[in-house]
Amino acid sequence: MKKNILLTIEYDGSSMKGWQKQEGQTTVQETLENALEKSLGERVVLEATGRTDAGVHAYGQCASFFTESGLPVNKIMRVTNNFLNVGERVSYPMGSIRVVDVKEVAEDFHARFSCIGKTYVYRLVPGDDVDIFKRSYCYNVKKDVDVGSMQEAVKKIIGKKDFACFQAAGGTPRKTTVRTIFDARILESGGELILVITGDGFLYNMVRIITGTLVDVGLGKIKPEEIDRMIEKKDRTLAGHTAPPTGLYLYKIYFDEGEMREWIDRIGMNTSWKWRS
Amino acid sequence: MKKNILLTIEYDGSSMKGWQKQEGQTTVQETLENALEKSLGERVVLEATGRTDAGVHAYGQCASFFTESGLPVNKIMRVTNNFLNVGERVSYPMGSIRVVDVKEVAEDFHARFSCIGKTYVYRLVPGDDVDIFKRSYCYNVKKDVDVGSMQEAVKKIIGKKDFACFQAAGGTPRKTTVRTIFDARILESGGELILVITGDGFLYNMVRIITGTLVDVGLGKIKPEEIDRMIEKKDRTLAGHTAPPTGLYLYKIYFDEGEMREWIDRIGMNTSWKWRS
Repeated sequence: MKKNILLTIEYDGSSMKGWQKQEGQTTVQETLENALEKSLGERVVLEATGRTDAGVHAYGQCASFFTESGLPVNKIMRVTNNFLNVGERVSYPMGSIRVVDVKEVAEDFHARFSCIGKTYVYRLVPGDDVDIFKRSYCYNVKKDVDVGSMQEAVKKIIGKKDFACFQAAGGTPRKTTVRTIFDARILESGGELILVITGDGFLYNMVRIITGTLVDVGLGKIKPEEIDRMIEKKDRTLAGHTAPPTGLYLYKIYFDEGEMREWIDRIGMNTSWKWRS
Repeated sequence: MKKNILLTIEYDGSSMKGWQKQEGQTTVQETLENALEKSLGERVVLEATGRTDAGVHAYGQCASFFTESGLPVNKIMRVTNNFLNVGERVSYPMGSIRVVDVKEVAEDFHARFSCIGKTYVYRLVPGDDVDIFKRSYCYNVKKDVDVGSMQEAVKKIIGKKDFACFQAAGGTPRKTTVRTIFDARILESGGELILVITGDGFLYNMVRIITGTLVDVGLGKIKPEEIDRMIEKKDRTLAGHTAPPTGLYLYKIYFDEGEMREWIDRIGMNTSWKWRS
């Protein structure tokens, strides 16, 4: 019997050329499809909620696929994680992709089309110091930033707006550049600034351009009140630089309005950030 | 005029094939010598205190070299770090090697022969959870360990002893397998166990075998009191497994007895671990 399966996945994107399969490159999709083939005994095609670029990480990427495999659903995670070398017996170097949840979903469910919202997280390290051990996991700004102006600016991103000014060229063409940002805030954690942003969808490179713009605000290159104008003018050249992929994490994906609202309320009560909250 | 220069270097060893130059491989020595050639305007040969293996990290590796370059000593760090892409203006992906100190030393100084002691640090993550973002930076034990027995066992490593049982085959042949461990302790930090070990020298893979042995003690496979016997018998087969390179950091190198004693005293007063203390 054909089953529709939804996976939740985390991955360290630093050694990956992004989600999407590409000839001759190590990608998340291909690595995961290879491991699933070994555990399920058949080749499947993964449909991810969002395609992450090279170097971008995920704590909660989702992907669905159909299978006729006889492997019980509650065994998929354990068996697949063993093939990904993140299971009971890992050998070093350990794998960089891990399945953290598996469930059977309705036949008409699709990881991309059923998604109603996503949270991205961006890790910024302000100050002139460089921590080489974080080089693939955050963005070392190399200068001090004014957090107050950044907090003022981030509020201007919230709402239903045409975000054309925060869209990079080169992505899949979209019908509209209007998106709704339900929540956006900057939390502090161990010397880092953590941008947490939740919306119904994001344009190509949108979070990285918003982050770069907020950094430019923090550096005094852009004034917080200029955010409204760059959105209104739909002009990419008025927005800031594109922050590197290294600091970006696809954090959480929602298929249920209530679950999303609850998470946003919870994050709204925090002033500091915990990765596993 | 020929100058003798001592560098202190930190590096993320996860993408490096160790310190020592090897044809067709990315190594710390070669990457650093290439950057120094650009900053000094001449090719130099680095003599490191210790050669670290592939995947091993360093917070305080030292290396000395002779140069006739006209570049003032106080500019070497800044210029070299720019060529290593960890300087004022970094582009992503950032470099994984950083010079943290440069000084001119006496003509007869040599980073290896003048060294009187070294501290290594090993990061262990006990428990069955796996954090893929730490996969290149620690050792996920994948099981709970008994910290009390490990604490009991680690004390038995301290002293001047023949450590042949903790030596792997394949290293440079040594005149003697007697070494002095001045201090060894396990500290706790954010769910991790941090082994901090200081000695006058270490045999090939010695810290990784000691760590593996301590883990085996924590797992109940080896009793703490068996440590004395394995040392006495000089028998590698009685000791534990070799812990992976990922958790190992060459932390600090001493050329001065007083400085080393002071650091050991300071670490002895701590029960938790801070990377920059």
